[in-house]
Amino acid sequence: MLNLPDQVSIIEVGPRDGLQNEKNIIPTEAKIAFIQQLKAAGITEMELTSFVSPKWVPQMQDADKIVAACIDQTRNFVLTPNRKGVERIYPLKCNAIAFFIGVSNTFNKKNINKTTNEALEEITPLILDVKKKNFFVRICISTSFYCPYEGKISPEKVLSLCSRFVDLGVDELSIADTIGMANPRQVYDLFSSLTRIFPTVLLTAHFHDTRKMALANIVAALQTGVTRFDTSAGGLGGCPFAKGATGNVATEDVVFMLEEMGVKTGLSLKQLVKALQTIEPYLSHPFDSGYFYLSKQ
Amino acid sequence: MLNLPDQVSIIEVGPRDGLQNEKNIIPTEAKIAFIQQLKAAGITEMELTSFVSPKWVPQMQDADKIVAACIDQTRNFVLTPNRKGVERIYPLKCNAIAFFIGVSNTFNKKNINKTTNEALEEITPLILDVKKKNFFVRICISTSFYCPYEGKISPEKVLSLCSRFVDLGVDELSIADTIGMANPRQVYDLFSSLTRIFPTVLLTAHFHDTRKMALANIVAALQTGVTRFDTSAGGLGGCPFAKGATGNVATEDVVFMLEEMGVKTGLSLKQLVKALQTIEPYLSHPFDSGYFYLSKQ
Repeated sequence: MLNLPDQVSIIEVGPRDGLQNEKNIIPTEAKIAFIQQLKAAGITEMELTSFVSPKWVPQMQDADKIVAACIDQTRNFVLTPNRKGVERIYPLKCNAIAFFIGVSNTFNKKNINKTTNEALEEITPLILDVKKKNFFVRICISTSFYCPYEGKISPEKVLSLCSRFVDLGVDELSIADTIGMANPRQVYDLFSSLTRIFPTVLLTAHFHDTRKMALANIVAALQTGVTRFDTSAGGLGGCPFAKGATGNVATEDVVFMLEEMGVKTGLSLKQLVKALQTIEPYLSHPFDSGYFYLSKQ
Repeated sequence: MLNLPDQVSIIEVGPRDGLQNEKNIIPTEAKIAFIQQLKAAGITEMELTSFVSPKWVPQMQDADKIVAACIDQTRNFVLTPNRKGVERIYPLKCNAIAFFIGVSNTFNKKNINKTTNEALEEITPLILDVKKKNFFVRICISTSFYCPYEGKISPEKVLSLCSRFVDLGVDELSIADTIGMANPRQVYDLFSSLTRIFPTVLLTAHFHDTRKMALANIVAALQTGVTRFDTSAGGLGGCPFAKGATGNVATEDVVFMLEEMGVKTGLSLKQLVKALQTIEPYLSHPFDSGYFYLSKQ
């Protein structure tokens, strides 16, 4: 028998992870409309924006405005890499925060010019701080399967890094296949270990559809008892540097598959399509979505 | 545990199912080169061509030439819908034949202007005939999950139709999700029944990636013990009538996933890419392939 839950949680990452690499700077009002439409579709957990240097990520320079307009009673994650970001977040009405770290040393060095240990040392006091203020804390663990520089990542490294965060009392670990290389066997094996070793933390699977394996990986993760999935409306967030090279698995494709399988997501496909229509005019590329284009025929 | 075999059989359908809907008439020499390159990649079972009226399917008008150039000791399927086709095939050195039938009445009516029963009556004597001549007989059972006109197809209808063919002594049943609507749960359920009820016939799964579920469906089918998969190099065979609407799952994407999972396919990815480069100049659209484009970076 396939192991299928009655329902799953979808964490929408489009507005942050999805839009952050878009070349066109998207007007704040368009982002807000997109976020509101996603909420109208039933999204109750979402990466909203990122408090980072506008020099590094100009797309996220309107983080304060996004938060002011969109924070509500649902779980709205804001992401930040450092104390400066945390200090910007404190005066706002945020209740959920996300930190980011790669398992791979080389990936961290190239990305944030710190080793994995240095990055861990930087965010550890931040985690303790925000926990004291009752934030829900999510850790995005990138390169959990493969690193573009180091190749295959050993599960032991992932488990060891995760245990550091579990010890700190974080609420959620999002385990990411950053370059879309993980296969269903690897996914099954790693998540089997994670769910067994860390039964109290929320475990979320974050897949990219680069090699068309994302939905297969979701089915594999379901077999281990995982019921939380990061997805991005329209598949936003790929660096579409080449035909066929895509990014985050599309929310609407995941919702379609799961609902067809009798697994409830709590989301409206019709309304997800509306949300995509809101943001479509501001993008310079098509969505990476099966459902969106089929729904319009 | 995921149920994974040591190895699987890949049945390449690109030269027939894949090319038959291509608008550009592809030169016979280019098709032959494509087929030879696919064989060089390790393909040992392939739908080679189709003996149909050139008025209906002009792309297949060179069937005799393809057969003359490409038949060898491996399993080379030629497809035909009728006695006229069978009579054309007899003088040639073919040893494997495929017949085609839809589970859905409406689909058969629209496709070949016959009900499912009428189609069954037409091909039954043909099957008995070619079996006597020691042909390997494959039946392609289309619309096994959904019909574009009738909607969801009941598993009982599929099982009932399959039993008719098993009684006739066919060698292989290829169970097709013609419009790419099947989900992994449905795949698991139907193939669980098929493998239990028909343990002696070769059962092959034929998926389309229209909604990006093809690889997930392959993983689901593997859980039931299925080890034969129809695939099409480059994902050829979609009617790419809209962005995101795609066809057969790409051979190279299936091979990449399975080999990464430790499941042997006997195929060379490098050589599959070469085969695609042979046919690429003759197509008016990109391949629907993750691996092909990533391999060229």
